[in-house]
Amino acid sequence: MAETKVYLLDGGSLVSDGFHLYWNRGPGGEVRFPCYSVLIEHDEGKFIFDTGFDKAHVDKVLPLGKPIQSGEQTIPGQLKKIGVDPKEITHVINSHYHFDHCGGNRFMSGATTLCHKKELDASRKPQPFENLSYSDLAFDRADDVYTPNYELIEGDTEIAKGVRLFETPGHTAGHYSLMVELAGRQPMLFTADAIYAAKSLELRAISSFHVDPVASYESMERLERLAEEHDAELFFSHDPESYGDYLKAPAHYA
Amino acid sequence: MAETKVYLLDGGSLVSDGFHLYWNRGPGGEVRFPCYSVLIEHDEGKFIFDTGFDKAHVDKVLPLGKPIQSGEQTIPGQLKKIGVDPKEITHVINSHYHFDHCGGNRFMSGATTLCHKKELDASRKPQPFENLSYSDLAFDRADDVYTPNYELIEGDTEIAKGVRLFETPGHTAGHYSLMVELAGRQPMLFTADAIYAAKSLELRAISSFHVDPVASYESMERLERLAEEHDAELFFSHDPESYGDYLKAPAHYA
Repeated sequence: MAETKVYLLDGGSLVSDGFHLYWNRGPGGEVRFPCYSVLIEHDEGKFIFDTGFDKAHVDKVLPLGKPIQSGEQTIPGQLKKIGVDPKEITHVINSHYHFDHCGGNRFMSGATTLCHKKELDASRKPQPFENLSYSDLAFDRADDVYTPNYELIEGDTEIAKGVRLFETPGHTAGHYSLMVELAGRQPMLFTADAIYAAKSLELRAISSFHVDPVASYESMERLERLAEEHDAELFFSHDPESYGDYLKAPAHYA
Repeated sequence: MAETKVYLLDGGSLVSDGFHLYWNRGPGGEVRFPCYSVLIEHDEGKFIFDTGFDKAHVDKVLPLGKPIQSGEQTIPGQLKKIGVDPKEITHVINSHYHFDHCGGNRFMSGATTLCHKKELDASRKPQPFENLSYSDLAFDRADDVYTPNYELIEGDTEIAKGVRLFETPGHTAGHYSLMVELAGRQPMLFTADAIYAAKSLELRAISSFHVDPVASYESMERLERLAEEHDAELFFSHDPESYGDYLKAPAHYA
């Protein structure tokens, strides 16, 4: 049995206002923050959690996001660093379908796409204030390049031994966070956008992008409880400070 | 039968960030905006809708709001301009219990306080992110100075002939907007914080302060429909532009 490995795939960065990152707390002003994906090499498959943003889409539709992403910071570029072909990926899971978390799905044309039923519905029928967040629907298209093979899921679920999804709604209707157990270290708990950064916890501030702030606060608290129960380490989704300390591919956690 | 009169009582101004006034739209940066109350002189009583902020409270608890309020801009100061003693007010109604809408309740010691049941509950048990908004609970105290005489209400309701409250939740749990019919002009529809400003409609942007953004959008749309059905004029709660055109006490609408 091979050891499970976790790679963080750097996906470049975007900017937003401090009042967007930390709802009603700020301070305001432009903040540049990282985006990354998580690859899990596991006996049961190669799983990728989130796939970053598509720079061409952001340049066109959300230029205020000032995307920075080199060729090496795309999904193919990152996978190449560890000798993996995108077609080898067996499962794609997105924490949610905001443009900065699903922009690279189309490269994984051989994968099963695990998808929270509510999230797929939300992305296809967004609230009026969610239109821009759900503006990159390339993940959901069916054409010659890529047709997603969905497997709809709901509730907390173990998708492979020691790899678990926890429902953390509020940021979006069907948001998932991910916990991975490893042989040589404490479990890694990827909050995704349920907690943007360590500062979010300090300020008790959710993101200003949300569909249900009450649920969003409950999810933040749920993740804190999960981290304590499982002695897991929290990995935040868009943390300008913590990100520097994370190991990035080709390095890995095991 | 006397003619119904509506007075707008100027209550000074506060500042907030553009990203707070116009959720996720902005632009960011400090914006100063007005606060005002509405007095309705009616055959069935003297009704006051909202009572502004208490400058001493804001100075102490929310100094970032940079309150400007002269003595003349307090509730007693405004009522004095039209020869009304605060004790003559028969009914106080608050659109909601955020600090900048209930700060003057305590002056109306003779009034019945009409109160949405859900709003009173929310103010007494706020969500964690609502603590500052609901920080001035002087309206709800019972002491020698002032003890509110609550009459709990729910649903749309006509509180006097031609004076109607419409439920517009989302900004808070029990938010009300107010419509007043007058003999000599089209009805006045006071949105309160369901629509901050004309620009909110242009941008389709609710306030960043909200408990339920989905409901908040529905309330904004409800008010647009009500204005159309009743050929009513919308009066926004915190509109730096429109406010200059509104008649302020001692002038009145009739």
